[in-house]
Amino acid sequence: MARLNDNYLKLKAGYLFPEIGRRVKAFAAANPDAHVIRLGIGDVTQPLAPAVIEAFHEAVADLTKSESFMGYGPEQGYEFLIDTIIEKSYKPLGVSLKTSEIFISDGSKCDCANILDIFALDNKVAICDPVYPVYNDTNVMIGRTGEADEKGYYQGIVYLPCNEANHFTPAIPKERVDIVYLCYPNNPTGAIATREDLQKWVDYALANDTIIFFDAAYEAFITEPGIPHSIYEIPGAEKCALEFRSFSKTAGFTGVRCALTVIPEALTAKTAGGESVSLNKLWNRRQSTKFNGVSYPVQKAAAAVYSDKGWAQVSETIDYYMENARIIREGLEAAGLTVYGGVNAPYIWLKTPGGMSSWEFFDKLLSECHVVGTPGSGFGPSGEGYYRLSAFGDRNQVLEAVERIKKNLA
Amino acid sequence: MARLNDNYLKLKAGYLFPEIGRRVKAFAAANPDAHVIRLGIGDVTQPLAPAVIEAFHEAVADLTKSESFMGYGPEQGYEFLIDTIIEKSYKPLGVSLKTSEIFISDGSKCDCANILDIFALDNKVAICDPVYPVYNDTNVMIGRTGEADEKGYYQGIVYLPCNEANHFTPAIPKERVDIVYLCYPNNPTGAIATREDLQKWVDYALANDTIIFFDAAYEAFITEPGIPHSIYEIPGAEKCALEFRSFSKTAGFTGVRCALTVIPEALTAKTAGGESVSLNKLWNRRQSTKFNGVSYPVQKAAAAVYSDKGWAQVSETIDYYMENARIIREGLEAAGLTVYGGVNAPYIWLKTPGGMSSWEFFDKLLSECHVVGTPGSGFGPSGEGYYRLSAFGDRNQVLEAVERIKKNLA
Repeated sequence: MARLNDNYLKLKAGYLFPEIGRRVKAFAAANPDAHVIRLGIGDVTQPLAPAVIEAFHEAVADLTKSESFMGYGPEQGYEFLIDTIIEKSYKPLGVSLKTSEIFISDGSKCDCANILDIFALDNKVAICDPVYPVYNDTNVMIGRTGEADEKGYYQGIVYLPCNEANHFTPAIPKERVDIVYLCYPNNPTGAIATREDLQKWVDYALANDTIIFFDAAYEAFITEPGIPHSIYEIPGAEKCALEFRSFSKTAGFTGVRCALTVIPEALTAKTAGGESVSLNKLWNRRQSTKFNGVSYPVQKAAAAVYSDKGWAQVSETIDYYMENARIIREGLEAAGLTVYGGVNAPYIWLKTPGGMSSWEFFDKLLSECHVVGTPGSGFGPSGEGYYRLSAFGDRNQVLEAVERIKKNLA
Repeated sequence: MARLNDNYLKLKAGYLFPEIGRRVKAFAAANPDAHVIRLGIGDVTQPLAPAVIEAFHEAVADLTKSESFMGYGPEQGYEFLIDTIIEKSYKPLGVSLKTSEIFISDGSKCDCANILDIFALDNKVAICDPVYPVYNDTNVMIGRTGEADEKGYYQGIVYLPCNEANHFTPAIPKERVDIVYLCYPNNPTGAIATREDLQKWVDYALANDTIIFFDAAYEAFITEPGIPHSIYEIPGAEKCALEFRSFSKTAGFTGVRCALTVIPEALTAKTAGGESVSLNKLWNRRQSTKFNGVSYPVQKAAAAVYSDKGWAQVSETIDYYMENARIIREGLEAAGLTVYGGVNAPYIWLKTPGGMSSWEFFDKLLSECHVVGTPGSGFGPSGEGYYRLSAFGDRNQVLEAVERIKKNLA
């Protein structure tokens, strides 16, 4: 009989967010009158920017006439979008990229999962803890790990704990690793990396022939000056890092789907025979064979994010969310909680009060305040005792949720 | 140093269509005045149906207000689309499916590539020859094969030749295989499978615990009655087959991106320990972890394909393409060529004249007629000596291309 991929059976329970969905659904069914406020999964709530909508409509209209009809696009994405990103998003950082170094996709989740396709299984991988669960779970699914121990750590992965003691900044591993995932501004802790922090990682990577998977999905939420928005602001990064970015949070594209991955041509990995091969070339082959490009109207809409009007509108929405972040952060601090993040990231990472576990606090807030966040332990063992709130809610809902929590904890 | 996936290096040359693109680009650059007609890659040319455009615009407009804004959708696809497909596309065939048995994706190319994720590497896989290259290449990339031999066959794959002698109908393999890919109506040969043909495959699969990957991307182009549109029209198929379908050709979505995969809950595979596990559950986990669903406006547009108006309009376009197929088929026959397909499939599969190789004929048609098709050998060794033309062109271009070929061969 056909055999399945047994690695899938190593995964513990469901993926975090479906489990939250299940608990909320059960609560809502038992309490139909409760007004549940969701600050959990980190989904955006505000409408698309008018300039983006306009471009979206125009591109749909292109499909009504054979003269302007668009069929298969390049698997790598349209140049009109890639070149706009290079010009508007990377050049201002002092970063030069070639068109061939950016690949447009339908989501960073897909990219940071699919990127594993082009690497050998015997690479040693380091992952922060707590972390976006996709990094960990996709390594399990592809067969790079053994079973999980009772804490939830999988054999074969090097975990880098991020906790209060190290200010949620992972220590550079003492052993050599081949691949390390970094996410800044961080999901879930809201921590940032300074230029010096990233320089240390790039130095380590260059010295050890390590590849950095740099997830910059939240770079647009950096409010303070001097904090790097891209790993490529660090000299030498083009030889040791690839970067993921997304329109999901930046421009409200969680339901529209567009993202990008940067793979510099200088980035290489070794064959079994020891020869260096361009990862850009390999990823290009992967995408050409297993992907068919992003929807044309979606790419047109994404390009409009960088028009003057589009960017002004998108920035306004980002400011709105970051004001939510301030309200949550200050409100929870006033309620006596210890709170991190929320200044350069749309996530607030709070310490659960009274030594409660993450899921205990989740259930308490759900049942007593009708507020949904994300249990920190869902992001890894070092997230135990923490809880994540997202700033992507509607303002009135955010105000109401903070009031409810304050009253509950008073 | 990080190691790459060496299996990628086993792949011969580039993926077929980029190589065609390269040759056409070089020809066009050297002959700027030549009017090149492309009947190669099989991309559609006609505008989207007005009902589809209307729904597309409406869904984009939903994103302008927070009350109707849509963020992350279900990774599996929206029920409004899945249930419409079940009702309008499967029920009329006498096939009952549950909502949980259909997964919406951004393309059948992605699905038929990604599906390999949930299977163990040691499964024995059978692939027709010639074939849609993605089936073969993705098995190479994931590491299921050895090197290619001089003909282009990869060690470890069971190839099922389809040629004139067997009317392009593959023989059931004499050995047991775990997985077999079937595509009907066939790309590239345009052959169809009768109910009896498919019953034989289902009987084989049930007797051997084999899983059929059934690619029905071209089912909407069947013009003759009595030919199955879905593998699930065959009793027992729900226990041994999954099915891929696509909006790409059916509704002109090559640039818009929407497809679906059916995985019945009754379909299982074995763990290493011999236990049967639902593949639906595994695929659901794969999609939840590595995918974020299809763009909301795209799913709304796809659902409109099945409205009364939408289907009438889409059918008109399909008829237009099938009239192109008739023109190509009859024109080439009149030119003395031996021609297959083009009756229940949008592809015409012709025997190259005078024993020319596929690429020789490709270069001849490109340089002498300025017509681009696809070399049969690009689909596998048994495609050598054949050439594929697609019926998706504009009518005037098709007429002109056929005239040029007739004159050239006269």
